[in-house]
Amino acid sequence: MNEINTPWVRTVLMDPPSLQNNTADAERLIAALKEDLQAGNIDIDLDLLKQLPALLRKWQYRVRCIVFKDHHRWLLTGITEAADTGPIAGLAVDLGTTRVVLRLVDLNTSRTLAESAFDNPQDAVGPDILARIHYAEQAGGLDRLNQLIVHGLNRAIDSLCATIKIDPQNIYALAVAGNTTMTHLFMGLSPRWIIREPYIPAVNKPPLVKARSLGIQINPHAGALIFPNIGSYFGGDLIAGILYSKIDKKEETAILVDVGTNAEVVLGNRNWLIACAGAAGPALEGGVTRMGMTAGPGVIDKIAIDPDTREFKIHTIEENPPRGICGSGVIDLAAQLYLGGMIDIRGKFLPADCGSRLNEIDGLLHLTVVPADQSGTGSDLTISQADMDSLIRSKAAMYTILETITASVGMAPKDLTRFYVAGTFGSFIDPRSAITIGMLPDLPLESYQTLGNSSLGGATLALTSADCLAEMDRIRDRITYLELNVNQEFMNRFSAGKFLPHTDPSLFPSVEVWSKK
Amino acid sequence: MNEINTPWVRTVLMDPPSLQNNTADAERLIAALKEDLQAGNIDIDLDLLKQLPALLRKWQYRVRCIVFKDHHRWLLTGITEAADTGPIAGLAVDLGTTRVVLRLVDLNTSRTLAESAFDNPQDAVGPDILARIHYAEQAGGLDRLNQLIVHGLNRAIDSLCATIKIDPQNIYALAVAGNTTMTHLFMGLSPRWIIREPYIPAVNKPPLVKARSLGIQINPHAGALIFPNIGSYFGGDLIAGILYSKIDKKEETAILVDVGTNAEVVLGNRNWLIACAGAAGPALEGGVTRMGMTAGPGVIDKIAIDPDTREFKIHTIEENPPRGICGSGVIDLAAQLYLGGMIDIRGKFLPADCGSRLNEIDGLLHLTVVPADQSGTGSDLTISQADMDSLIRSKAAMYTILETITASVGMAPKDLTRFYVAGTFGSFIDPRSAITIGMLPDLPLESYQTLGNSSLGGATLALTSADCLAEMDRIRDRITYLELNVNQEFMNRFSAGKFLPHTDPSLFPSVEVWSKK
Repeated sequence: MNEINTPWVRTVLMDPPSLQNNTADAERLIAALKEDLQAGNIDIDLDLLKQLPALLRKWQYRVRCIVFKDHHRWLLTGITEAADTGPIAGLAVDLGTTRVVLRLVDLNTSRTLAESAFDNPQDAVGPDILARIHYAEQAGGLDRLNQLIVHGLNRAIDSLCATIKIDPQNIYALAVAGNTTMTHLFMGLSPRWIIREPYIPAVNKPPLVKARSLGIQINPHAGALIFPNIGSYFGGDLIAGILYSKIDKKEETAILVDVGTNAEVVLGNRNWLIACAGAAGPALEGGVTRMGMTAGPGVIDKIAIDPDTREFKIHTIEENPPRGICGSGVIDLAAQLYLGGMIDIRGKFLPADCGSRLNEIDGLLHLTVVPADQSGTGSDLTISQADMDSLIRSKAAMYTILETITASVGMAPKDLTRFYVAGTFGSFIDPRSAITIGMLPDLPLESYQTLGNSSLGGATLALTSADCLAEMDRIRDRITYLELNVNQEFMNRFSAGKFLPHTDPSLFPSVEVWSKK
Repeated sequence: MNEINTPWVRTVLMDPPSLQNNTADAERLIAALKEDLQAGNIDIDLDLLKQLPALLRKWQYRVRCIVFKDHHRWLLTGITEAADTGPIAGLAVDLGTTRVVLRLVDLNTSRTLAESAFDNPQDAVGPDILARIHYAEQAGGLDRLNQLIVHGLNRAIDSLCATIKIDPQNIYALAVAGNTTMTHLFMGLSPRWIIREPYIPAVNKPPLVKARSLGIQINPHAGALIFPNIGSYFGGDLIAGILYSKIDKKEETAILVDVGTNAEVVLGNRNWLIACAGAAGPALEGGVTRMGMTAGPGVIDKIAIDPDTREFKIHTIEENPPRGICGSGVIDLAAQLYLGGMIDIRGKFLPADCGSRLNEIDGLLHLTVVPADQSGTGSDLTISQADMDSLIRSKAAMYTILETITASVGMAPKDLTRFYVAGTFGSFIDPRSAITIGMLPDLPLESYQTLGNSSLGGATLALTSADCLAEMDRIRDRITYLELNVNQEFMNRFSAGKFLPHTDPSLFPSVEVWSKK
């Protein structure tokens, strides 16, 4: 009667009460559900209990139950008539610092019903985690940040539901994956101690709460599952990513990397998992250059430079006139400039080779990527030497983190056979360009696999597979978190990584081949 | 550090966070509590979690935790500084149809801090369960009944706390025992189907809820334990009574009887428990006579009639001038009239022996118990033949229920060795008088033991002993409920019981002895 992979919607047909079988309504339903789910404890919310006697009689004790599970108990979060075939939806949310992505899932079929995204409205307070945490410490600051994201989500839920013509009341479950700070702000928990030594979150495994108690306006009985974190710098979004990548279930040792301002890395297999996170700087996300912006129409996402003519072939999203460049575009640009001989192994512009594209503005060298007459802004789109230096530091940090985590288990980056790149940003990166600048190791290109929004993918799994809940806790409890102590060895690796592709070019044999083409 | 019998208050001293031990605040506390309590799952309410980081730091990770347990999990319901010695109170409530009794308990020492009682304000809607259930079916009726009891409790809590100068915020746990209907009305659950065949409550084991969600204004994190019921006619007050009497733990077979309009009976020992409930009519509680009233100053609670002079010796509560008679007074009166030869074995007034006390009013014989010049009302206090007939029917029903439940296990009422009389009303009954009229079996007087307010006693135990919670569920799950089918055998027993003391006087040998004195 139920799909194997959708444990949240159960049809329950009960014997109506009689003098011989006069247990109470709640216990009649719970007993039937327990048998169906093979579950130990099933709780009913008081508000739902109030409606139960009338509903069971109206539907002649033939009902469809929507259930939810946390670490150790089941909750009944809704009932409908057994014959009702109306939508029973769940909402998965990737709660990003910059962007929030929503996916509505049919809990009956696991199918995606609709998706949408919006910029995190907390950006009005501050663009990054640090700014928001400081703001949260001001009087009323935490409340305001909390309200910004809650209202933003409610607006987005209303719009999303409108597009497929369902009522938000039909959403019976919510799963939210975000980094530790975003999760805290969403729950109204102070993030103050996250950024202060010894970096302590308020909670690692958030309790299962009602979506209502978080201010989210979906079905009033809906449960909200908030992904657990490992610590202040390793959040639920990564746990969701591991869940989605399934690296914790495979024999082969794989690595999962979320490339961003903060690089988060998990290495492991079904026997062990080790994780670390470290600051890579905003350069990899295009966040430092004056022309940098997040992906959108008119944003440069790919660049090719003809090594002979040094002609720039620019590709923009939706092929609109170029307005700026996103992170993957910056990585492409750096790789192409290097392969085209326009920057040296330190990432410095070579004036002789850059020609008229190179100009000094305010005492700093700028390379014109798109001249004003071809741009969508009416101005030159340029990248400065400082931007390039920043990118070099970021890519060196990224590679150093990979070296450190692999070294901690006696491996080297080149020993990896499966490399998952997580995150929306990561999915736009061309591995060949990332290898060229020495940001990612020189593995066969087919070793690289993008996961897209794995945080959203993991949140979706939590809504569609009961096993994933236990799995989530198992992952959380099994991970060894590696503190990235910035010691001499780390600094040596970092210094060696600040060359294109590396001080030791033998680590990147492909780059030599590519640069000769 | 903790009293053995007060498991709800635990002092927890944690290591403060460090880089080596950087688990989150919530998990740090839960881990320490789990070890202390040897508990599996401990949940923290979101609102408490929000305060946790600041409080733990303020108190240097040395705290006193107030915990609460339901059927399968522990809840953290409050924390204070470890050094805080302020009161941590629990509130036990006997939620009676007529009277509501409150007891404040110190959760640290199990000592009673204060008690109070008030008339159930739902009486404004209807004096009995039936009237209230019908009222609850009207539009807004259930809400009004719910608000009446919730507001009544809040007012009583405020007054009670004021008497001992504590803040209601210091009450961290609530335990409520009441009959099934009162429990439903208190939780806002419709009692509609309780009185309609096949008599189905909305719930047998109410979920553990927050006192706040019931509208009770004590500490906002306080949990509320509401006693489970066996069915529509066997409520949580009786489960509380069993818990308090401990008949479920003893080798000897004992009986527990709550005498009232509805007689509730439990028979059993540590191996088995059987229960039944049946209508005995309001006569036993003094509810039918014109002079009947509930206990209070000036109410006749004891009567002795000199068999020679037929002089009435009247005792009133607080020895005020008599204003009326309560149930125990009516039983005394009937017994004394019988022993004094003023009524016959059918309970009919004997005019020759009643003399001038007997008068016909509106075509019905009335016996003057207190003449107008001695009464507190200025009028004669009388009891009519109809009142006496009603008492006879009620006492016959009571005895028939005792015969039926004992017969169901192959015993007779006279085989009982331990007879617990529960309820506030029951504690005023003189067993000798009850035996004389054949309402209770002719056992040695020392077999009778009054429990006082056993419902309140059980609710108090739930607040002061962790074992009692599991015990409560064990009791509920072990009881066999005997339906009192009104069949020919029942009617035969009932008819035989309508004599004083019984058609078969050999069942009551003591009465013959007493009547000869």
